[in-house]
Amino acid sequence: MAIIVQKFGGTSVANAEKIRRAARRVIERMQAGCQVVVVASARGHQTEELMRDALELHPNPPKRELDQLLSTGEQQTVSLFAMALDAMGSKAISFTGGQIRMMTDGVYSKAQIISIDSEFIRSELDKGRVVIVTGFQGIDQYGNVTTLGRGGADTSAVALAAALKAEECEIFTDVDGIYTADPGIYKKAVVLDQISYDEALEMASLGSGVMQTRAVAFAKRYDVKIRVRNIAGDNPGTIITREVPQMEGVLVSGATIQKDMAKIGMAGIPNVPGTAAMVFARLAAAKVVVHDIMQTEISPEKANLSFMVNKADLATAKQVAEELKAELRCDGLFVRDDIALVSVIGVGMRSQYGVAEKLFGALAKAEVNIDSITTSEIRISCAVDIGQVEKALEAVCLAFQLDRPARQRVAV
Amino acid sequence: MAIIVQKFGGTSVANAEKIRRAARRVIERMQAGCQVVVVASARGHQTEELMRDALELHPNPPKRELDQLLSTGEQQTVSLFAMALDAMGSKAISFTGGQIRMMTDGVYSKAQIISIDSEFIRSELDKGRVVIVTGFQGIDQYGNVTTLGRGGADTSAVALAAALKAEECEIFTDVDGIYTADPGIYKKAVVLDQISYDEALEMASLGSGVMQTRAVAFAKRYDVKIRVRNIAGDNPGTIITREVPQMEGVLVSGATIQKDMAKIGMAGIPNVPGTAAMVFARLAAAKVVVHDIMQTEISPEKANLSFMVNKADLATAKQVAEELKAELRCDGLFVRDDIALVSVIGVGMRSQYGVAEKLFGALAKAEVNIDSITTSEIRISCAVDIGQVEKALEAVCLAFQLDRPARQRVAV
Repeated sequence: MAIIVQKFGGTSVANAEKIRRAARRVIERMQAGCQVVVVASARGHQTEELMRDALELHPNPPKRELDQLLSTGEQQTVSLFAMALDAMGSKAISFTGGQIRMMTDGVYSKAQIISIDSEFIRSELDKGRVVIVTGFQGIDQYGNVTTLGRGGADTSAVALAAALKAEECEIFTDVDGIYTADPGIYKKAVVLDQISYDEALEMASLGSGVMQTRAVAFAKRYDVKIRVRNIAGDNPGTIITREVPQMEGVLVSGATIQKDMAKIGMAGIPNVPGTAAMVFARLAAAKVVVHDIMQTEISPEKANLSFMVNKADLATAKQVAEELKAELRCDGLFVRDDIALVSVIGVGMRSQYGVAEKLFGALAKAEVNIDSITTSEIRISCAVDIGQVEKALEAVCLAFQLDRPARQRVAV
Repeated sequence: MAIIVQKFGGTSVANAEKIRRAARRVIERMQAGCQVVVVASARGHQTEELMRDALELHPNPPKRELDQLLSTGEQQTVSLFAMALDAMGSKAISFTGGQIRMMTDGVYSKAQIISIDSEFIRSELDKGRVVIVTGFQGIDQYGNVTTLGRGGADTSAVALAAALKAEECEIFTDVDGIYTADPGIYKKAVVLDQISYDEALEMASLGSGVMQTRAVAFAKRYDVKIRVRNIAGDNPGTIITREVPQMEGVLVSGATIQKDMAKIGMAGIPNVPGTAAMVFARLAAAKVVVHDIMQTEISPEKANLSFMVNKADLATAKQVAEELKAELRCDGLFVRDDIALVSVIGVGMRSQYGVAEKLFGALAKAEVNIDSITTSEIRISCAVDIGQVEKALEAVCLAFQLDRPARQRVAV
């Protein structure tokens, strides 16, 4: 019998009515002849509330105790979810991470999953029960409660799907799936039928926000088919799966923008081995996360180096850069916090030409100036003036026909 | 090193400020050179709130899931308590019932404790840590969470004290200890220095309310010294301990009243073996809890039978009695719901004369009419008119000098 893992986030289980709505999703799948494992998060803003309770008692709560505290949120949801199913006539049983032996390492607040007692879960499913498991948490080898950190419930769901060889891991959200572009900005954006793990990873890291990078990476490693869908309505959502040949025919799957980035440029750094290594070691030591890096030689002795950082890290990054400027005797330091990134993503880029050309052409036609360009194997990003980024996205979406599903696009 | 178990109820840990106050109680004992194990309940009205959440989803929630849900309340408290201690400079670690292997039977919502991993707790104490344990909960042999039911946190504390051979089990409340009488009614009541298990059991079952019967019975079985004391102030509280010779010198330790009782009398039941057994079997089948039973033969063929029930059970009890009246062809059925019980309790009664005489004398002097009288080895209870019960208590307290500690009473 096919096993389906269904994951419901905090907003999808925020109150009794929403828990019942989620439970109906379970029953639909049961009626279709599947065995269902539910993964649920803490209700609504409970985790934040518990965090506030903790901070009232300790400015920097011991991580073990924080995990012990925060894990109660999901435990409440799963038992309530089991009650809802029982009231609706379905047999159900709830488990904490510890009860299903979701073993993790001992790194509190960002534990990694090591193993799951899938045989135990199977035996419960075979009793005709829905198995409801707390997301976000496990235990270490000593029985201490550990939490998986941000996006942990998605990761729990994917890990369970992998361990149980589930047919699908459904991630319920409040949007219809993964869109070709942010529908809040580009109104004509459409939901993607399917997308590859790599594309979803690029989209996630560029802030499309529907899925956490970590859960997608986990799914890719264990080949778990994810379906991102809306808790409301009938939209089948977006499937995230391994790359299949027909995906190559699609030039660009989606486009994203990021407004929270800033760029630091160091002009005229010494063009000798080890300079870049030194710069990024110093930034790492200051805990600055560095995004796209660009370097160009400008003479046999000198090079220009620039990189992107989150705006939140800009002050720190700038200070490090100022120090480095003095030490390295750079010609100048340029900081831009008025830029944004517009990116296109598509595995088709690997095998097809013309994406860059079409992208730059679209931006030019829209009179958007490009500050800088970076690329990965399946992505091209352009830094543009922040005031022009919505216009840039619109132009890009139009050029790549992101207002319609891939199968309806026409070759131009 | 002496081990002290300290139990804090829901009101004593209701918010951050109260948790800090409780934590200071722990630190006092640590500074006095003790090892401390804390047992804590869910904060404030959390258990009630979770119960409400459950009832929103299920009119009669499955007990396993209810236990899984309700147990989160204590888990939150213990982790927050550990954070508070850490912030105050004390090493502390929190555990759920499952984590210290508090093994129970599988009777959800009213489980019985079978064993505790005391070696594990000792090893944590020996690391210089305060060990903070969830009250009210354990796990069964399959790892399911079980709760101990009403008064469960007191029972957890006493069980831990027994398993760890603790010097004392401190139960913190919002009153100074166990009073000679309810200070809300008899203003001059004083706190008892010490009281025997049996007296405490009689007091508890008569509704003095400070300690649960079950926890006291557990303490008696394992000879655990309990100290009931106020979370605020410096009152040393009341020690509940095994009977010691000097207790015998005290005629009466305390007096109580109970207003929630009603009396059912069946006049002229057949005076043959098995009649009483039949009556109480039928009442038990109707789930009526029966208190004091009185029976008197009135002729070779007939007897009068009466018994006390809680007012909440009166309607059911009356219906059962009506049926029995017809079946047994009784002469009459008398119901009194306008009575209350006034009782005196003291282990000294076992070895000293004159208690009954003094009691009846005091009531007579106060012009309180006695409806009926029942006794146990260490208790005498009189049913009186409900309108006279406060006056009766006052008269009794005066007669037995319950306005002063036992050591200050004078022989009269």
